[in-house]
Amino acid sequence: MLDGLMSDYPFLKMLDEEALAIIERNLVQKKVQAGELLINGEEACWGFSFIKSGVLRVYRLNDEGREVTLYRLRKGDSCFMTVICALAQSNTHAYVRVEEDSELVILPILLFEKYLMNHPVYLQFVFKNLYEKFLSVIQVVENVTFNSIEQRVIDYLQEHSRGGLLYRTHEQIAFDIGSTREVVSRTLKSLERKGKVKLERGKILIKK
Amino acid sequence: MLDGLMSDYPFLKMLDEEALAIIERNLVQKKVQAGELLINGEEACWGFSFIKSGVLRVYRLNDEGREVTLYRLRKGDSCFMTVICALAQSNTHAYVRVEEDSELVILPILLFEKYLMNHPVYLQFVFKNLYEKFLSVIQVVENVTFNSIEQRVIDYLQEHSRGGLLYRTHEQIAFDIGSTREVVSRTLKSLERKGKVKLERGKILIKK
Repeated sequence: MLDGLMSDYPFLKMLDEEALAIIERNLVQKKVQAGELLINGEEACWGFSFIKSGVLRVYRLNDEGREVTLYRLRKGDSCFMTVICALAQSNTHAYVRVEEDSELVILPILLFEKYLMNHPVYLQFVFKNLYEKFLSVIQVVENVTFNSIEQRVIDYLQEHSRGGLLYRTHEQIAFDIGSTREVVSRTLKSLERKGKVKLERGKILIKK
Repeated sequence: MLDGLMSDYPFLKMLDEEALAIIERNLVQKKVQAGELLINGEEACWGFSFIKSGVLRVYRLNDEGREVTLYRLRKGDSCFMTVICALAQSNTHAYVRVEEDSELVILPILLFEKYLMNHPVYLQFVFKNLYEKFLSVIQVVENVTFNSIEQRVIDYLQEHSRGGLLYRTHEQIAFDIGSTREVVSRTLKSLERKGKVKLERGKILIKK
């Protein structure tokens, strides 16, 4: 099972054979479906997930009960919450919801702490991975600061659509570009009137 | 010199005596003044800075030549660019400017790579430090999304002023809250008309 993970998680190649054998014996495969809540704010320390496919969304609830997306995890990504959890020895009050059907391979937390949390190559990997996420959030701030809302929506549609189609709610788009659902809906309707998009239930068609 | 750093950089306590002795012999003290450009986009790999006092601002220039602040570094912080640099073995095109007079203690890059970049305790520290910065940027996105511009400016003044005084330019405030200088200036003038602040050259007085 590890062989299949090594191309996306190259730090595994640096572990010694004994560690790899122990890890391999203890990995648990799990398929999860879009919409499922994987972690409900209290059990973030159960293990480290390798992501083979799909998308997970990690978020918190703020004081007013609003969801605040921290980041999305895909193939090759690392669940930073697990690392923080292991460092702080306490839960992180994060929520994780499956955004697209995903295949995970889970390493129990005790093995994670023993074999990965003390390994420089793993820690360097996870730092680099977090730094990339950090830069992408900076990009959101930069867009919010310098671009008009209409331009931000257009850039977003172009970046995330496949074959002229985008399956996202207005609320998801709003958080990703740093706006509110109301403003995104208004902007999309204006783009529809201009003939640039067609809005349908649960999806957006982008016209040439 | 290391003794004075250990309270702010506790991972140093985990290094062995030989490493500490070598590091101590090679540290270079440096005092820098507000306004100075420390790194001009091409020399980010010169060494690792321990920050004893002051504030450094790390930024990039985007495609349109605008400055985009990545983060500010203070006592106890780690220069993430140095880590990325060491990982990627190439420059990161970052700029670092002194925002408030600072005292630095610099460890040459080769010693940094040898003694810190392979040390789990250091890497865990730097990961945690980056994660905190990451969360503070998320906070900016959240504020931009959910709060009115006036509320964001008021929150900012309350959080950053000392004794009712704030020494920041409108441009600095703008980037920190994810807005533009024009909008911040307009908002501050409106707050001045309402008698909540008084604007002076280079400083803002907050009234009770």
